Amino acid sequence: MAGENTGPAVILVEPQLGENIGMAARAMLNCGLRDLRLVQPRDGWPNGSARAAAKGAVDVIDNAQLFETTEAAIADLARLYATTARPRDMTKRVVTPRQAAQEIRQADEAGNRAGILFGRESMGLDNDDVALADTVLTVPVSADLTSLNLAQAVFITGHEWFLAGHDTTDEMLAVPKETRPANKQELIGLFEHLEQELDDCGFLRVAEKRPTMVRNIRNIFQRANLTEQEVRTLRGVVKGLARNDKE
Amino acid sequence: MAGENTGPAVILVEPQLGENIGMAARAMLNCGLRDLRLVQPRDGWPNGSARAAAKGAVDVIDNAQLFETTEAAIADLARLYATTARPRDMTKRVVTPRQAAQEIRQADEAGNRAGILFGRESMGLDNDDVALADTVLTVPVSADLTSLNLAQAVFITGHEWFLAGHDTTDEMLAVPKETRPANKQELIGLFEHLEQELDDCGFLRVAEKRPTMVRNIRNIFQRANLTEQEVRTLRGVVKGLARNDKE
Repeated sequence: MAGENTGPAVILVEPQLGENIGMAARAMLNCGLRDLRLVQPRDGWPNGSARAAAKGAVDVIDNAQLFETTEAAIADLARLYATTARPRDMTKRVVTPRQAAQEIRQADEAGNRAGILFGRESMGLDNDDVALADTVLTVPVSADLTSLNLAQAVFITGHEWFLAGHDTTDEMLAVPKETRPANKQELIGLFEHLEQELDDCGFLRVAEKRPTMVRNIRNIFQRANLTEQEVRTLRGVVKGLARNDKE
Repeated sequence: MAGENTGPAVILVEPQLGENIGMAARAMLNCGLRDLRLVQPRDGWPNGSARAAAKGAVDVIDNAQLFETTEAAIADLARLYATTARPRDMTKRVVTPRQAAQEIRQADEAGNRAGILFGRESMGLDNDDVALADTVLTVPVSADLTSLNLAQAVFITGHEWFLAGHDTTDEMLAVPKETRPANKQELIGLFEHLEQELDDCGFLRVAEKRPTMVRNIRNIFQRANLTEQEVRTLRGVVKGLARNDKE
């Protein structure tokens, strides 16, 4: 990944609530984005409730740039997305946040800055702002409730950009530092220990059922992806239970 | 997609601020999720600020189930994810929201309900709650700011579930209902009209440059994916400009 990527600028056009500006800033920094631009925030600027809601992202608020017009806010950008929930009566490319993320990464690598416009909470972007954009960006949401909080829209868009630049492993096994996955020898040692005790206590006494039962029990513990430490714990459990039984 | 899927239950364990509960409910309904369960919300229940923050998702708040313990809240679930930001000292599968979404869809189709645990805003889930889960779910975020708002965590997780069930086209061309993409005959008609006028006004007078210039101009309009209506608009533009020129 190009370390120089600063990601898309986030341009809030006439945002209404300071709290939403703050939460948007926090969402941006969660995604590694810092370039916040404001076009005529309703309650003026600076705004105390924006700072308060930003939590750990106060720097993003303090470094936000203020503009009189959308045109001025986007002047340096080579690519612009307009976030809208509803289709406008325009012929326009419409992409998902995931598609936009790919395009913005590619543009970044070619040295072309991108930006994303977000409209006011009550009614979104007006059509003139949408017409400034190359592409419409629509966050797919359920028909159950299509009205999306501003900070959520910023977050989902920024997060797709963040994910697109990271080789996130979708699945891994977290293991405490002081241990490691058990090897097969350790696992088989556990199995044989357990099966010996199960033979001794008579649990496996029906000879024709024994092979299936042993396989089933082994499969349970195979599936558990045991660590070396856990194998030792389980051997202690088996030993403890068996001793109890014999006393 | 199976229409019967109700998606994962969202279980908030000891949530602190009513507003966050409300915003989480709104985020759920944005993703088509309705099964909200609360374990000992700090400020009691019902909670007026939760209702206020839920906006269009008041139903989700009003139908939320209240539980004394996490164990009681998850009793009917076959699969449980615990959302944590930091690695715990446990051996545990860890997945992204995207991976969890696939698994939850598969479980749903097999008739197995899943749930996702979210901890209190200040300190997340405690280790005993995490130990109740099959799998840890971690939202990948930037090291710039790892503290994620509760409703954002609910949204990103629910949204991946939502997306996993919809064949969302990452890119499309929105076209107003009253028109359609131009066909090639209409496009070529525009080209020839434009080139005729450019010949007449002398713009294409240098014969050896003419083929390249014509190709370049045609490419500009090809790239624009014009509608039939836009072709007519452009022919009017050409005609208007040319008439102006001649008068």
